[in-house]
Amino acid sequence: MNIIEEVLAGSKRALARAITAVENEYDEAAEIMQKLYPHTGRAHVIGITGPPGAGKSTLTDKLAKEYRSQGKTVGIIAVDPTSPFSGGAILGDRIRMNELTLDEGVFIRSMGTRGSLGGLSRKTAEAVKIMDAAGKDVIFIETVGVGQSEVDVIKAADTTLVVLVPGLGDDIQAIKAGILEIADVFAINKADRDGVDRLNTEIEMMLDLNQTMVDWRPPVKRTVASKGEGINELIEVIEEHISHLKVSGQLAVRRTERTKNELLALLDEQIGRYVLKHITTGTSFDALVASVEKREKDPYTVVNDLLRQVLR
Amino acid sequence: MNIIEEVLAGSKRALARAITAVENEYDEAAEIMQKLYPHTGRAHVIGITGPPGAGKSTLTDKLAKEYRSQGKTVGIIAVDPTSPFSGGAILGDRIRMNELTLDEGVFIRSMGTRGSLGGLSRKTAEAVKIMDAAGKDVIFIETVGVGQSEVDVIKAADTTLVVLVPGLGDDIQAIKAGILEIADVFAINKADRDGVDRLNTEIEMMLDLNQTMVDWRPPVKRTVASKGEGINELIEVIEEHISHLKVSGQLAVRRTERTKNELLALLDEQIGRYVLKHITTGTSFDALVASVEKREKDPYTVVNDLLRQVLR
Repeated sequence: MNIIEEVLAGSKRALARAITAVENEYDEAAEIMQKLYPHTGRAHVIGITGPPGAGKSTLTDKLAKEYRSQGKTVGIIAVDPTSPFSGGAILGDRIRMNELTLDEGVFIRSMGTRGSLGGLSRKTAEAVKIMDAAGKDVIFIETVGVGQSEVDVIKAADTTLVVLVPGLGDDIQAIKAGILEIADVFAINKADRDGVDRLNTEIEMMLDLNQTMVDWRPPVKRTVASKGEGINELIEVIEEHISHLKVSGQLAVRRTERTKNELLALLDEQIGRYVLKHITTGTSFDALVASVEKREKDPYTVVNDLLRQVLR
Repeated sequence: MNIIEEVLAGSKRALARAITAVENEYDEAAEIMQKLYPHTGRAHVIGITGPPGAGKSTLTDKLAKEYRSQGKTVGIIAVDPTSPFSGGAILGDRIRMNELTLDEGVFIRSMGTRGSLGGLSRKTAEAVKIMDAAGKDVIFIETVGVGQSEVDVIKAADTTLVVLVPGLGDDIQAIKAGILEIADVFAINKADRDGVDRLNTEIEMMLDLNQTMVDWRPPVKRTVASKGEGINELIEVIEEHISHLKVSGQLAVRRTERTKNELLALLDEQIGRYVLKHITTGTSFDALVASVEKREKDPYTVVNDLLRQVLR
């Protein structure tokens, strides 16, 4: 039985191997993705992002357990764009999940950066597809921090949950501004802390100001993940969101948009590889770099010349 | 007098206009960069990064004032990859700098994301070059948070200062792992807080474990930026670092590497633009997207076909 069949049969070992192949850009990665691709598109992909310290891991943990108790299988991808961790490594906070890792219906994977970030979102999206093909009903993409790279990674999700926490101070403003547009659901975690009402009001005010919402206003739910409080209510609105996407036809629109972006990202990456191979090897590129450094030529002129060399 | 001459003469208004042209990708941007480029390469570029709440803005403020008192002119670029702010906008925390903004020898600019992140690092690097051509002696690139996108942005710096702060909790571990390799100098800010000794020890231990350092071990300095404490000592090691780069020949090596990367990034961006223009317009791309969505074709096969269409 080959790796494709084993992944389709849900083997944890095959899943891990397939994701490692994608992550490390092994030669067989493209073939694995080609063969698994027809079996994708069924899972509900939930992105979880928010600032460090918001308790995202604990929350993901509790959401995963609740989905398991409903009989659904779960995949979790913990993504850390700031970390060069190999995918095989387990992030520190994933250790808390030992109960889940013993569950045959749960597959957990950490992914970090090796090389380019564009690569990270593409690889995360492919890890999602591998888990999807393996039959996981719900797949979480959990980010360690929040930033543009996390936003890019989370674009593979159908439903994006933004986790905030009271009392993180002024810098939260900047974070909130950036993630507002990707949030489908807000969770205020550690909601037994001071400042929860103020944060709730702030989020609602931001939502009031947002002109882009048409027919879905992101609900704001309070949780205390460490005590399991608010988990069911949170899952309820997450499920409402995916139902809304399906009923309104927006799920299809979003997925078409995603397919388009993924094709372009892959194309971009492959072109980048071609350029690296055909332009940067050889002495003429070094000579161009030197002439730019000496200010004999400027970068724009050089790049225009190079473009004519590679493009039809 | 045209904008090029005005920038070279150090006009704040021309500087702002030139950076806006680059940021908004106005048609004249390429020409501005082409003409300013021969006048670049003189400034000392200092990157300042670290987690939100570390007091980076206040520290930058104090460092800028100290450099000003030494008679040097200063440029400051505050970069927030999580924010869609226009470059014209002033970040909230930049308001603290009102004293500096009145100083003719200081130019401050905020930059956020519009569109792609790759674009942000390229645009930040170009804003640095514009300030450099305008004769700024020291140029700070200050990031709002810390993450892969910030790391990419900060690559335009000669000296990278990583600002940490005691008592930020466990997540700091992940942050530290990611930024260790880019740090030339560490500042422990808010050093009047509890936990400063522990953090200092942690950093030194990390540095002990780092095998990649050859002839420069990043010094760790303690500051209380709000009270102006430790600023002179910090500037001393920053100056030691740039001297070290010059004397050891590493400055030339780093700048060659940077020129190379900037050329490749610009090339990548221009190819991306070509692809967008020639591939994504027209109905055949939409048909390909649809066939991928229906699982009739897989993304890898489609991308391989598209590659053959555009590349020589």
